[in-house]
Amino acid sequence: MTKKLWGGRFTGNTDPLMEQFNASIHFDKRLWEVDLRGSKAYAAALARAGIISQDEAAQLIAGLDLVAAEWLANAFVLREGDEDIHSANERRLTELIGPVAGKLHTGRSRNDQIATDTRLWLRGAIEQLRRHLHQLIATTVDRAASEIDYVMPGFTHLQPAQPVRWSHWLLSHVWAWQRDACRLDDLTARVNVMPLGSGALAGNPFAIDRTALAAELGFAEISPNSMDAVSDRDFIAEFLFWATLTMTHLSRLAEDLIIYSSREFGFVTLSDAYSTGSSLMPQKKNPDALELLRGKSGRVMGQMTGLMVVLKGLPATYNKDLQEDKEPLFDAVNTLDGSIQIACGVISTMTVNPLALRAALSPEMLATDLAEYLVRRGAPFREAHHVAGAAVKMAENQGIR
Amino acid sequence: MTKKLWGGRFTGNTDPLMEQFNASIHFDKRLWEVDLRGSKAYAAALARAGIISQDEAAQLIAGLDLVAAEWLANAFVLREGDEDIHSANERRLTELIGPVAGKLHTGRSRNDQIATDTRLWLRGAIEQLRRHLHQLIATTVDRAASEIDYVMPGFTHLQPAQPVRWSHWLLSHVWAWQRDACRLDDLTARVNVMPLGSGALAGNPFAIDRTALAAELGFAEISPNSMDAVSDRDFIAEFLFWATLTMTHLSRLAEDLIIYSSREFGFVTLSDAYSTGSSLMPQKKNPDALELLRGKSGRVMGQMTGLMVVLKGLPATYNKDLQEDKEPLFDAVNTLDGSIQIACGVISTMTVNPLALRAALSPEMLATDLAEYLVRRGAPFREAHHVAGAAVKMAENQGIR
Amino acid sequence: MTKKLWGGRFTGNTDPLMEQFNASIHFDKRLWEVDLRGSKAYAAALARAGIISQDEAAQLIAGLDLVAAEWLANAFVLREGDEDIHSANERRLTELIGPVAGKLHTGRSRNDQIATDTRLWLRGAIEQLRRHLHQLIATTVDRAASEIDYVMPGFTHLQPAQPVRWSHWLLSHVWAWQRDACRLDDLTARVNVMPLGSGALAGNPFAIDRTALAAELGFAEISPNSMDAVSDRDFIAEFLFWATLTMTHLSRLAEDLIIYSSREFGFVTLSDAYSTGSSLMPQKKNPDALELLRGKSGRVMGQMTGLMVVLKGLPATYNKDLQEDKEPLFDAVNTLDGSIQIACGVISTMTVNPLALRAALSPEMLATDLAEYLVRRGAPFREAHHVAGAAVKMAENQGIR
Amino acid sequence: MTKKLWGGRFTGNTDPLMEQFNASIHFDKRLWEVDLRGSKAYAAALARAGIISQDEAAQLIAGLDLVAAEWLANAFVLREGDEDIHSANERRLTELIGPVAGKLHTGRSRNDQIATDTRLWLRGAIEQLRRHLHQLIATTVDRAASEIDYVMPGFTHLQPAQPVRWSHWLLSHVWAWQRDACRLDDLTARVNVMPLGSGALAGNPFAIDRTALAAELGFAEISPNSMDAVSDRDFIAEFLFWATLTMTHLSRLAEDLIIYSSREFGFVTLSDAYSTGSSLMPQKKNPDALELLRGKSGRVMGQMTGLMVVLKGLPATYNKDLQEDKEPLFDAVNTLDGSIQIACGVISTMTVNPLALRAALSPEMLATDLAEYLVRRGAPFREAHHVAGAAVKMAENQGIR
Repeated sequence: MTKKLWGGRFTGNTDPLMEQFNASIHFDKRLWEVDLRGSKAYAAALARAGIISQDEAAQLIAGLDLVAAEWLANAFVLREGDEDIHSANERRLTELIGPVAGKLHTGRSRNDQIATDTRLWLRGAIEQLRRHLHQLIATTVDRAASEIDYVMPGFTHLQPAQPVRWSHWLLSHVWAWQRDACRLDDLTARVNVMPLGSGALAGNPFAIDRTALAAELGFAEISPNSMDAVSDRDFIAEFLFWATLTMTHLSRLAEDLIIYSSREFGFVTLSDAYSTGSSLMPQKKNPDALELLRGKSGRVMGQMTGLMVVLKGLPATYNKDLQEDKEPLFDAVNTLDGSIQIACGVISTMTVNPLALRAALSPEMLATDLAEYLVRRGAPFREAHHVAGAAVKMAENQGIR
Repeated sequence: MTKKLWGGRFTGNTDPLMEQFNASIHFDKRLWEVDLRGSKAYAAALARAGIISQDEAAQLIAGLDLVAAEWLANAFVLREGDEDIHSANERRLTELIGPVAGKLHTGRSRNDQIATDTRLWLRGAIEQLRRHLHQLIATTVDRAASEIDYVMPGFTHLQPAQPVRWSHWLLSHVWAWQRDACRLDDLTARVNVMPLGSGALAGNPFAIDRTALAAELGFAEISPNSMDAVSDRDFIAEFLFWATLTMTHLSRLAEDLIIYSSREFGFVTLSDAYSTGSSLMPQKKNPDALELLRGKSGRVMGQMTGLMVVLKGLPATYNKDLQEDKEPLFDAVNTLDGSIQIACGVISTMTVNPLALRAALSPEMLATDLAEYLVRRGAPFREAHHVAGAAVKMAENQGIR
Repeated sequence: MTKKLWGGRFTGNTDPLMEQFNASIHFDKRLWEVDLRGSKAYAAALARAGIISQDEAAQLIAGLDLVAAEWLANAFVLREGDEDIHSANERRLTELIGPVAGKLHTGRSRNDQIATDTRLWLRGAIEQLRRHLHQLIATTVDRAASEIDYVMPGFTHLQPAQPVRWSHWLLSHVWAWQRDACRLDDLTARVNVMPLGSGALAGNPFAIDRTALAAELGFAEISPNSMDAVSDRDFIAEFLFWATLTMTHLSRLAEDLIIYSSREFGFVTLSDAYSTGSSLMPQKKNPDALELLRGKSGRVMGQMTGLMVVLKGLPATYNKDLQEDKEPLFDAVNTLDGSIQIACGVISTMTVNPLALRAALSPEMLATDLAEYLVRRGAPFREAHHVAGAAVKMAENQGIR
Repeated sequence: MTKKLWGGRFTGNTDPLMEQFNASIHFDKRLWEVDLRGSKAYAAALARAGIISQDEAAQLIAGLDLVAAEWLANAFVLREGDEDIHSANERRLTELIGPVAGKLHTGRSRNDQIATDTRLWLRGAIEQLRRHLHQLIATTVDRAASEIDYVMPGFTHLQPAQPVRWSHWLLSHVWAWQRDACRLDDLTARVNVMPLGSGALAGNPFAIDRTALAAELGFAEISPNSMDAVSDRDFIAEFLFWATLTMTHLSRLAEDLIIYSSREFGFVTLSDAYSTGSSLMPQKKNPDALELLRGKSGRVMGQMTGLMVVLKGLPATYNKDLQEDKEPLFDAVNTLDGSIQIACGVISTMTVNPLALRAALSPEMLATDLAEYLVRRGAPFREAHHVAGAAVKMAENQGIR
């Protein structure tokens, strides 16, 4: 019995708050499928290595399939003491197939197990994100092609600068997403590495064939150092950075469109599906979808920062601090997946007003062209720039455009 | 009907994903009690201003009490379309008392309502945090008083520096928490300001007596500018900074105790209530509680960063981006409340090993005292420091302590 | 001689890169004045405690004045080995007055010295910031008073919502700054605490009268715990948070004005003093000052984040990591001081276009007033809101405003 | 003349503070070499396109070489009005070769010029970082090979877990750096893209051959969209993330070594080149180098955060906010370059104490092996784990190891 020596809150053998803090099942249950998949492959590997019999492996695998079926049918019941997805699944397996279940964890630790689960899960999530990102790109490219004749003012410093095509503006965002797609491919290679077989930190003592195991689970590589493997969260940090930069790109698109859909600019009108009214002002139509995209860039940046701070100054191998990795990861995947699709929906359905675009072109915007004309006639650019500037000023003073 | 013009994902009149993004009910339902409390006070204020009759106010208040009773009894059923706590409560009120419910929102906007709700809620949360923080301080002070005779090495750079009392070390953390308590008092004054009556942005057109309303809701002040009031989230930012700095203090306590409870230091032993074993290594006893405290400092820093990024560059008054304020706030309150109590539990129940503390004192640590002795005899400090250093080196070379 | 055992870069007795990393003189020389001021007070305190003679104290103080005179005259020459401001000043003092200089450091450590210096310096910097902040507030209030008759659209979600006064918008920023001023006062109390007398971590062994010393240096309090005092950087963290939130407010002002000074809005024109032209486009006038204010909010948020990360998980008392506290502090003070003044300059000198403000008011913006009118006539608000919304839609369809 | 209408600080035609805020020459002069290199290539491209004559191009190139020679000889004198490196170089060029200098900027904007300069500069910086990183890896691998026979406790949760090789621990850090090297290669491809020819935002009107220009400057690709190219700072964000993650790895190495070099652990002794003494305590030897590595991870994380916040919500193309990109970039490159070399120096020169490593192995650490032995004899792992745990407890109770 833990004695409470110096006052403070009562704590019996276990502090219920501590159990709650310690438990991860309320969020890591999302990993049930990859956890079971990993366990099935591990059972097969134990049998191949002769640690358990073929018959035992078959029992384990059949049992794990039963557990999976319960999850799928939404029939898996969490019990007190199921502190994480690993213990929940193993507890249920034991109930279903008896003591042979106790052989599954041989040579495996929750340290290598959770790292493997998370990588398997993220690999799947990335596939879906990639698909949605490509759809966003394709949709925007299609729209740019259809509306290639629209001309608008290109802005720098939010001041009209030079005429550009509307499609040029649309594609300026596409190219940022294209880099995001490229970065996503690069980091996938670092996600798709299997830590299983690293044990708690010192490796697997039972001569498991890790290469075969990796092949079965679809991993491209196996982790080379067990101490590193159980504490490496680079793949999550890198993903969260990817998510943050991608959201930053969406926040810039959102900023443009919020301004362009203001009454004063009037370049575009958002579809009702992505706008909302006001509870007080009957006439309002607000670009909520875009504001959420812009705001959620902060949310994801917060998730990345949080994880990086967790990692800073941590001593070697597994420390419990690392439990803080999954909630930001899950939240960022959800946020990105929704945000990319919503951006795609906004772009698909907004209406552009080509007359407003054209009306916003002002003669002053051709000052650069005047300067360029003078250059072609042989004037040094600096002088031409000066002359064109003076012409603009004179026109302004005389009220001429 | 929203047409999908450029391919992309299908979107009908409303994009279900957008509805999900837009909805806040899954987290802001936590505000049900303060939302109803605010509405009751507002109904009374409308009656005082003659906008509704006393009878109507009575109906509204009775109806709001019924809604509260449903929440309390866990019998409130959310329906489709309940996008936030305000609309859920008003929808239910309408079902219970009919069209008069439609008078409640007169002159009020969700913009001033949500700001009011959040401030009311946070005020309550702060009271509880303050209580737990004071308990942590009191517990640690008690322990310091009881163990005032223990002497240990004081460390700088994690190298033994000079002997200090164990209680001096304990209190060095207490003083940081004392500053946290002081900062919490300061910021409470800025939380406890009532925005209600600001409308959507332009104030309340019905001559509501805001001062009386504030008194009824226990607010110390009313907000002076309606445009500022509906978008001011400083009080959340300031709270999140408070939370981050407090967690940073706990992370430093945790770091000390993780090191002091290592086998090599052996200064303290954590109680079983705050440690856990290993799934692979039977002999392990891990300081999980402390690692979680350290890790969660990252979590909260992420929440603060996220909110600050949301606020950056936002145009005036309410923008939907601000919906991103509540999840970090709620999460930070939960994390702090648990963390402070767990820190208190750890300190209450850990065992200190005074012999190990004393054994860690080494004669070299008295080099400063030797130098000080020489100073008292008249030597300039710099020279004394030099002589004492040489003595240490000589002793080391000759294997003498 | 340090042997290079495993290849790698050559390192002799000292690695020059390490000396460069370790040295802080290139930035902490900014503390020369407060360092000397603190030393003069400390010399007097040593004499009062009988550790040195009155005559020695007089020599030290005279010598320190000489050093100060050199700094003032820009005649202080840094030498190799002057790794920080303390050692530079003491080295020079020794050259000027001989071995008695060696008595100055008696019972003092660089740990309590640097904490004292930084607090003295920041106290002065805050005074100046407070003055500039009040000037910004006063200037904006004056402008609001002068232009109280201008009416403009108030925006939510960057969509016109309800008519407001221009001065109401101006003052909505003032109230945020007012909170900043209030927070600055609160934190100053926590800056103005004297750590001197804490030694390296274990306090001062020579019975220095710390209260008298604090009075002499203008500190309101003395730090109560020496281990805490040498590693407490809360006052810097809190200042950096203050700076970040204040810059966030300026970033929101900047965002408003960048949009309001766009050609499409045309509400305000920045003075030439705060705009710049383009190297390519002769007609451009860019709101550079405002964009810098907005951008620098990121800079300062980065400084705060950096410091908080440094503090996270640090073990007790002084660790060299803390050397990373001064550069962000100095940079943030510079940035804030300039930004506040520039915001004041922008507001002082911009031209507002009242006709454009008024022209931007649209009849739809009175929909709320129509709804309110119906409410006064007894209609429930929800119904009135619905009717007013329908009226707007009908008018829109018929091309009537 | 700018009139000061509403009080506030005096501002004449230009506010000197604004000039100071606006100017970037004090930091971007670091780009002098790449700026001149880019200009020489651009002059040649203008000639190839027939915009200027071969003779003019030759004059320009010769003049640019003269300017370069002045910088190299430290003889370049900055003048008032040299607000950035581009204008400084062009001003000097004009002084040296007369009005023909004014033709150099034809069709080029500072927007595409600065983006090009920064990419050229970073490309060079990355090459050096890569070299130093590989040296760190090679040095550590060599050390691991030499000391492969040392055995130490492997820690999880800073508690002894299982015996591992010292070299295994060393290599666990190497593998993290190996990932850093891999990420650096990936991002280099995105740095090495040429924006020159994008103009201010709308491209180059003079049919410059951008592919030839890119080849001359060693760029692998040309940017595909001019609006994106002038505002894309992804390559800096990505580099800063790389820097942050790499520093996080160094912070973890530092944390391990700070703990391992404590008197209580005693596993390693740092060389004097990377330690320092105390100004108060003559016996101290502090791991300053490691603490700085740990602390500087915060510094770099701050730089990344700062830049990301700058980018968030920025409207399309160039905005002055982007001027905030270079200081964090330069500082991060400096910090990384120094930190990697210092880490290499620390590892090269520290002394390891194999006896202390071995003495720290405790019989309890073989509990896992006992459990594994039982498994090999056929016991289910869960049962074996239980038995081994009980054996440890019994031994503890009886004082047997």
